[in-house]
Amino acid sequence: MKLQIMGCHAATPRFMTHPTAQVLELGGHLVLIDCGEGTQMQLRRFKVRFSRIEHIFISHLHGDHFFGLPGLISTFRLLGRENPLHLYGPPGIKEAITLLLKLGDSWTNYPLHFHELTATEPEVIFEDARIRVRTLPLDHRVYTNGFHFELREGERSLRAEVARAHGIDRAHFQGIKQGADAPAADGTVIPNALLTDPPPPPKHYAFCSDTAYKPSLVPLIKGVDVLYHEATFLEAHAGLAAKTKHATAAQAAAIARDAGVGELLLGHYSTRYSNLEDFREEALAVFPRVSLAEDGKTFEW
Amino acid sequence: MKLQIMGCHAATPRFMTHPTAQVLELGGHLVLIDCGEGTQMQLRRFKVRFSRIEHIFISHLHGDHFFGLPGLISTFRLLGRENPLHLYGPPGIKEAITLLLKLGDSWTNYPLHFHELTATEPEVIFEDARIRVRTLPLDHRVYTNGFHFELREGERSLRAEVARAHGIDRAHFQGIKQGADAPAADGTVIPNALLTDPPPPPKHYAFCSDTAYKPSLVPLIKGVDVLYHEATFLEAHAGLAAKTKHATAAQAAAIARDAGVGELLLGHYSTRYSNLEDFREEALAVFPRVSLAEDGKTFEW
Repeated sequence: MKLQIMGCHAATPRFMTHPTAQVLELGGHLVLIDCGEGTQMQLRRFKVRFSRIEHIFISHLHGDHFFGLPGLISTFRLLGRENPLHLYGPPGIKEAITLLLKLGDSWTNYPLHFHELTATEPEVIFEDARIRVRTLPLDHRVYTNGFHFELREGERSLRAEVARAHGIDRAHFQGIKQGADAPAADGTVIPNALLTDPPPPPKHYAFCSDTAYKPSLVPLIKGVDVLYHEATFLEAHAGLAAKTKHATAAQAAAIARDAGVGELLLGHYSTRYSNLEDFREEALAVFPRVSLAEDGKTFEW
Repeated sequence: MKLQIMGCHAATPRFMTHPTAQVLELGGHLVLIDCGEGTQMQLRRFKVRFSRIEHIFISHLHGDHFFGLPGLISTFRLLGRENPLHLYGPPGIKEAITLLLKLGDSWTNYPLHFHELTATEPEVIFEDARIRVRTLPLDHRVYTNGFHFELREGERSLRAEVARAHGIDRAHFQGIKQGADAPAADGTVIPNALLTDPPPPPKHYAFCSDTAYKPSLVPLIKGVDVLYHEATFLEAHAGLAAKTKHATAAQAAAIARDAGVGELLLGHYSTRYSNLEDFREEALAVFPRVSLAEDGKTFEW
């Protein structure tokens, strides 16, 4: 899995601090998570091959997570896109996008599929042979979902030295990785269990923004490799966080600790703070593995 | 009048080339003309005191002139704006903005006034003691207006040496500029005509984007000081210009020449061109006073 941050700041975009958008590469897909204003500029700035994006997941319909979407959809049209695009988001996303395209008489010439989410319990919203995407219902001022991405390494891992010792032809290797037995040089059939190790465990990424501190998330994201959890405020403004249904860095870290995640990524910083290191320090007091999201930064696992 | 370009490129925004938006300062107003995606970042980048903006004029509802508006409206709210904001644009602008605010449950806490334009003939849409704004119906794929801004220098110009020769007290100067007679040191009343010159002629700015070549514009913008006319294409792509209802640099220059304007500003360049000087050269062959709009550039007259 490879995650690149396009923007990770709250609310009002500025020239150098962009609102939420992330590109996640997994299992042959490039997906976009949220699409604040200016996301298409950021995609170009960081040279993302964004025509590959076929699935866009929108957490909620506040502008800093969503106002870049109409422009990106229009740009795909201008660039001659033909591949379908799937949009997942709260009810109303279809009406909004459709109205904006209608007003500009700018219908897409590629298929646009809307998947309006309404569940308040986690649900699987996309699945193929290698990946599965689930919603993570969050607690914010409007209907909001986080997203849980699971990448299953479908192939078993070849014990190359065993295969060579039996003189197995390389032409069989792909089949072996997919679970097949294979003939040795002398004609004996070697069972797959001898030739392979089980596939590595699935990889997981959980995106949780925007949300108040919500302990009921913990069992849903137990042990994920990477958790992005919003930290709009520091504890000094815990009251404001509660009032606006956002979280503090310490609360994000408590969720990470209780869920036993591999690494916590913080983001969605309020622009009132000038030193982002304060977020990391506050979280480190609660949980040991903390990174700061920053525009353009890449995380791979 | 002082014009600053926030963005002047066509269609798909990129990291360093922004779609249409201009800030015009005149007669005590700061107005915004068009608002492509990312305009609020550009306003901050160029340190425009954008809370002063009370009137926004939207030419048409294509994304590159309009998709920055919902974000700017939301940002005004987050910054605690209280002053009314007036929006002028095509029918549908109210429905679109209202829907987006509703979906985000983010109603403004300042008054938002929509002025939907429907006329196909020029009309005065705003006027006060010093400025007048008229529409300039354009010829584009959707209903589109340019805007003609007129600044009347209301005050007569004081002949300071005459006033001094008569020993007129400075306390009278403001009244004299507004047309009053004034007492000399010896008590004689000096008529205003002796004390002042007429106010300077009004200043004019015409914004014409997006539009096909439209000769009927000429009488409407006769003699304006500055004409911004879109030049999406060069003559090499005149067929594409006609098909998409855009203009070439040579066509923009022909309008400028026939209207006898002071200066022609070109903009709305298609991103297919890498050398903007080609636009100036093509226009200069038709009209002698040509400048290129560029993000951040300021023009004053």
